Amino acid sequence: MRLAADPETLYPVALQRRVERYLSEELPFAAVAGTERLVEAMRYSLLAPAKRVRPVLALATAGALGHDPDEVLPLAAAIEMIHTYSLIHDDLPAMDDDDLRRGQPTCHVAYGEDVAILAGDCLFAEAVALVLREQIGPPQRVLAALRELIEATGLAGMVGGQFLDVSGAAESGEIERLARMHSLKTGALIAASVGSVLTLVGQDGPATMPYRAFAAELGLLFQIVDDILDVSGNEQQLGKRRGSDQRLRKITYVTAHGLEGARRLAAETHERALAQLARAPGETAELRRIADYVLARQR
Amino acid sequence: MRLAADPETLYPVALQRRVERYLSEELPFAAVAGTERLVEAMRYSLLAPAKRVRPVLALATAGALGHDPDEVLPLAAAIEMIHTYSLIHDDLPAMDDDDLRRGQPTCHVAYGEDVAILAGDCLFAEAVALVLREQIGPPQRVLAALRELIEATGLAGMVGGQFLDVSGAAESGEIERLARMHSLKTGALIAASVGSVLTLVGQDGPATMPYRAFAAELGLLFQIVDDILDVSGNEQQLGKRRGSDQRLRKITYVTAHGLEGARRLAAETHERALAQLARAPGETAELRRIADYVLARQR
Repeated sequence: MRLAADPETLYPVALQRRVERYLSEELPFAAVAGTERLVEAMRYSLLAPAKRVRPVLALATAGALGHDPDEVLPLAAAIEMIHTYSLIHDDLPAMDDDDLRRGQPTCHVAYGEDVAILAGDCLFAEAVALVLREQIGPPQRVLAALRELIEATGLAGMVGGQFLDVSGAAESGEIERLARMHSLKTGALIAASVGSVLTLVGQDGPATMPYRAFAAELGLLFQIVDDILDVSGNEQQLGKRRGSDQRLRKITYVTAHGLEGARRLAAETHERALAQLARAPGETAELRRIADYVLARQR
Repeated sequence: MRLAADPETLYPVALQRRVERYLSEELPFAAVAGTERLVEAMRYSLLAPAKRVRPVLALATAGALGHDPDEVLPLAAAIEMIHTYSLIHDDLPAMDDDDLRRGQPTCHVAYGEDVAILAGDCLFAEAVALVLREQIGPPQRVLAALRELIEATGLAGMVGGQFLDVSGAAESGEIERLARMHSLKTGALIAASVGSVLTLVGQDGPATMPYRAFAAELGLLFQIVDDILDVSGNEQQLGKRRGSDQRLRKITYVTAHGLEGARRLAAETHERALAQLARAPGETAELRRIADYVLARQR
C-alpha cells in the first residue's frame, strides 16, 4: 500500500494532545515540601516531546469500542508514566548509558544518577496510585485492568525483557531469544495498552480477540522499525543516538535480515496488523492510522 | 518498664516464620526462560535474614481484629517485597553506596549494578501484581488497601523520603526536615503495614484510630532506635555497617539529643505506642510485643 508522504499527518494528533494536556495540566503530583526537584525530574522526562503511542493506543481502543476516550485517561496516563520510568532506568550508566532521549539530555545527565533512579521509581508508584485513585469503572474491572498492566511491566514483561537485554540476549546471535526479549521488553506494554482497555470497559471476550492480535503485531512492527531507524534514521528527528545497537554489538532485525529484508518484514507485519483490524468490531480507523504511522515514522 | 533480657524472645516468631515460608515457598515468581538470574537476585535480597517487622505488623493487625492472619498474606508479602526493593535501590553506588545488608553483600555487589536496579524494579512490580492476583477480599476494599500501600511508597512516602535524604535533609541540621524525611522514608510504609490491613478488613473507622496512632509512634520509635544502633550497635548483629550516618555526616536523633537523650526519647515513644494500644479494641498482645522488640532490638 502507499502511505502519505509525511507520516506525521497520519497520526491521531487530537488524542496525542489530549494525553499531553492531561499529563502536563491535570496530573496531580502532590509534592511534599522539599521534593520539588524530584517532581521536576519526573516531569522533565515525562513531558519531553514524544508521540505517546501507548496512551494514544489506549484512548483509540476505547473510542473504537464506543467509549469516550476521556474515560480511560488515568489508565492511559499511567501507561505513559510506566513507559517513561523504563526509559529513565534503561538509560542509566549501569544499563545502556545513553545521554540523549526524546531530544534532550537523559534524566541522569540532567539531574544526577540518584535523582534519576528515584524519578523512575516514583513515576512507577505514582502511575499505580493514579489508576487506583482516579480511574472510573467497576472496582473488579479496574483491578483486572491494572493487573494486566502491571503484569506487563514485571518479570514476564518489561523488566524481564530489559534483563534479557542487559544479560546479552541481543548479542547471543539467537534470533529466537532476541524475539522473546523484544516481545517482553517492548511488546508486552504495547499489548497491555490495548488489552487493559478491553478489560476495563468489559469487552474482553472472543469478539475482541482481533484487538489483541492487532496489538501483538503492532508491538513487533514497532521493534522492527526501531531497528531500521537505528541504522537509517536521522538523529535529530529520533531524539536519541543512532547506532547504539551497533555500539552495543546487538543483533537486530537489520543485522539478521539486512536493511531491505527488515523493511519487507515491517511491511508484512503492518499488513497482518491491518488484517486483524479488518476482523475487529467497532470503529477502528484511528487504530489503523496508528499502525500506518508506526510503519512510516521517522522517529 | 523492664524488658526481657533477650529482645529476640519478645518477637512473635510464629508470624515471622509464616511470612518467610510464604515468601520462600509459596510466592509464584513466574520466571520466563532466561530470567532465572534476575529471580535469583530478587530472592537473594528478599530471603536474606531479617525480622520482617512490616509484614509481621500486618499479620498481627489482622489477628488483633479477629481475622486469620493468613487472610492478609499476599498484602503482607507485598509490603516486604516493596521494603526489600527500597533497600536494594538505597544501597546502590549512586545512592548510599553500601556494601553490606542483612548480613550479606548488597545486591549490586553480588549481582552487578544493572541487575540490582532491575531486581528492585521487578520486586516492586511483582508486589503490586501479587496483591492484584492473590489478595482475597471485596474488590473495593482490595483496591483501597493497595492504594494506601502504594501511596506510602511514592512521592508522599518512601521515595519522596529517600529523595529528601539524598538531597541533604539529614545534613541540613534542621531537625524538622529530618523528622519529615524519616516519617516519609520509613514511617509511611510502617503506617501502611497497619493501615492497609484496617482498610482491607473493613475496620477503618474511628474505633480503630488508635491502631493508626500506634503505627505512627512505632515508625518514629523504629527510626530513633536505628540511629542509636548506628553508633552503639554490633555490626555482626546489625548485618550492615555501623557508623554510616557519621560517614555521610547525617544529623540523627543521637547527634541532635545525645545518646542518653535519644534513649530517653525512645522510651517515651514506646510508652506512647503502648498507650495507643491500650485504647485500641481487639487482642493487641502481639502488637505490643512488636513494640517491645523494636525498643529493645540489637539489630
